[in-house]
Amino acid sequence: MDEFALIDRFFKGQGVSRKDVLLGIGDDAAVVRPADGRDLVITTDVLVNGVHFPESTEPAAVGHKALAVNLSDIAAMGATPAWATMGLTLAETNEQWLEAFCTGFFALAEAFDVQLVGGDVTRGPLTIGVQLIGIVGEAGCLTRSGAREGDEIYVSGTLGDAGLGLQVDSGMLTVAERDEAVFLDRLNRPLPRVELGRALAGHATAAIDVSDGLVADLGHLCESSGVGAEVDVARVPISDSCRRYLAKVGWEPVLGFGDDYELCFTAAPDQASHIEGLSHELGLGIVRIGRIETGTIRWVHGDQPFSPHAQGYRHFR
Amino acid sequence: MDEFALIDRFFKGQGVSRKDVLLGIGDDAAVVRPADGRDLVITTDVLVNGVHFPESTEPAAVGHKALAVNLSDIAAMGATPAWATMGLTLAETNEQWLEAFCTGFFALAEAFDVQLVGGDVTRGPLTIGVQLIGIVGEAGCLTRSGAREGDEIYVSGTLGDAGLGLQVDSGMLTVAERDEAVFLDRLNRPLPRVELGRALAGHATAAIDVSDGLVADLGHLCESSGVGAEVDVARVPISDSCRRYLAKVGWEPVLGFGDDYELCFTAAPDQASHIEGLSHELGLGIVRIGRIETGTIRWVHGDQPFSPHAQGYRHFR
Repeated sequence: MDEFALIDRFFKGQGVSRKDVLLGIGDDAAVVRPADGRDLVITTDVLVNGVHFPESTEPAAVGHKALAVNLSDIAAMGATPAWATMGLTLAETNEQWLEAFCTGFFALAEAFDVQLVGGDVTRGPLTIGVQLIGIVGEAGCLTRSGAREGDEIYVSGTLGDAGLGLQVDSGMLTVAERDEAVFLDRLNRPLPRVELGRALAGHATAAIDVSDGLVADLGHLCESSGVGAEVDVARVPISDSCRRYLAKVGWEPVLGFGDDYELCFTAAPDQASHIEGLSHELGLGIVRIGRIETGTIRWVHGDQPFSPHAQGYRHFR
Repeated sequence: MDEFALIDRFFKGQGVSRKDVLLGIGDDAAVVRPADGRDLVITTDVLVNGVHFPESTEPAAVGHKALAVNLSDIAAMGATPAWATMGLTLAETNEQWLEAFCTGFFALAEAFDVQLVGGDVTRGPLTIGVQLIGIVGEAGCLTRSGAREGDEIYVSGTLGDAGLGLQVDSGMLTVAERDEAVFLDRLNRPLPRVELGRALAGHATAAIDVSDGLVADLGHLCESSGVGAEVDVARVPISDSCRRYLAKVGWEPVLGFGDDYELCFTAAPDQASHIEGLSHELGLGIVRIGRIETGTIRWVHGDQPFSPHAQGYRHFR
């Protein structure tokens, strides 16, 4: 099967057909028709075999994650995802692998009404680059740079499960079976917080998705906004499964690992009840972990100073 | 240098700043503001080290080519390139390599008023994925599917130089020094036919960029349009340098190799004088090589039947 047959079989005509896509896969480029007066957000993320996911990861999870990490960026902008392209580099044409990979990718794409409009399939070390374009709503988009002194800092869901999943997957940590399922599911099938991000537009002052670890990502947000913060690590939301291993593994998987793809955002104090309402509406925990201040970021644990050693994942040091 | 420092040093704030980019590199996604009523075209192409370019290729040429192949797709759609993102996977942070790579990339981006608005830098085998979004003009865009019986078939520039460049580069072919310069320049620094593509919108009936070889790409165009053709290989435009080696190497580098990134397009016979005018205006040869017919594609050489063995580059067979 050459790449043209491969594209025809696995990608062309798969998934949703959006009305604003005039021409999808199969020409030199796709053609889309944006609604008048709407800004667009554009992001891209690359997953490399053995770097972003272990070689043993099931292909459906790889397909899911390749889109999920991009959806998470669109979520952090408070926009609605729409059109994706994919650069897929494959060492070989393993049809079974491709079938499962596409199942994972297109199931998530369908859930968020994203159409894959184009791509490129080439030969080489397994690498998946996805580019995603989203549409900004009437309330405008969220950025990292709008946090102001006195804003509250929130985190959605729980942090740390994906980090423990990686430790379990790599054999560094042994856990009970039910906890293993929780951790590996979070690692392999992160659920991007698209609805939350969209609902926060017009209400939050700044947002970022936690993809490099809370310490690093809150650092990015504060740096972009030119502010500091006081953050209480005891308030950082973690799952019951994660709590069982906290004494053993420490805070590193919670604060220094980002693959949970939750949102960290800031909002003025008068938004507190709105955010509480959102949490109920979406069935998603949203916890206040601190407050924006001037100066630097100070971490505490209750009323004690705390030093987070985690610095987030770096590809190059 | 970690990837954040790398992005700051080599990518952030580099190149042109377009007015329609509200937020560039440095947030979770870029924000752009499309003009009302304009469709967009979206494309992506990936270059893999050792597959799309020899390991020895100078980094500035790699940077140039990574954008050029995408510009060529936008050209084939008759659109104007605008916003790019890059997924850059690097085995190591070689600052000298990155500096030269960026020089090549941004020089071409500036020439076509393209702004790099975002990207992702990761660790892994050297792979460069670029995604490019273009803006469709008032005359609409070109596709592969509009060719009709009786249309003339044209090719811009010359074909074969890049194919000979690859043979020279890989040591398969030895040529005179001045010819070597011509061939390697075409291989490493293809000039996408953006102005031509844009000028053809509203005049051509179908277009494709020759990236897989003329035989393959004209095949794609005819298949998409549901037509056949008669093509005279003796009319296919080749450079004087290429002509000197034609007897030795045969038609394969001319017909079966695509890296010249010329445009192949079709137009009704009444467009002939307009196209001739375009050729003069752009200082770019445009040659009629055949005519669209019903049925299949028949190749001739003057009045003799001709069988092109070249089938175009396939990543997987």
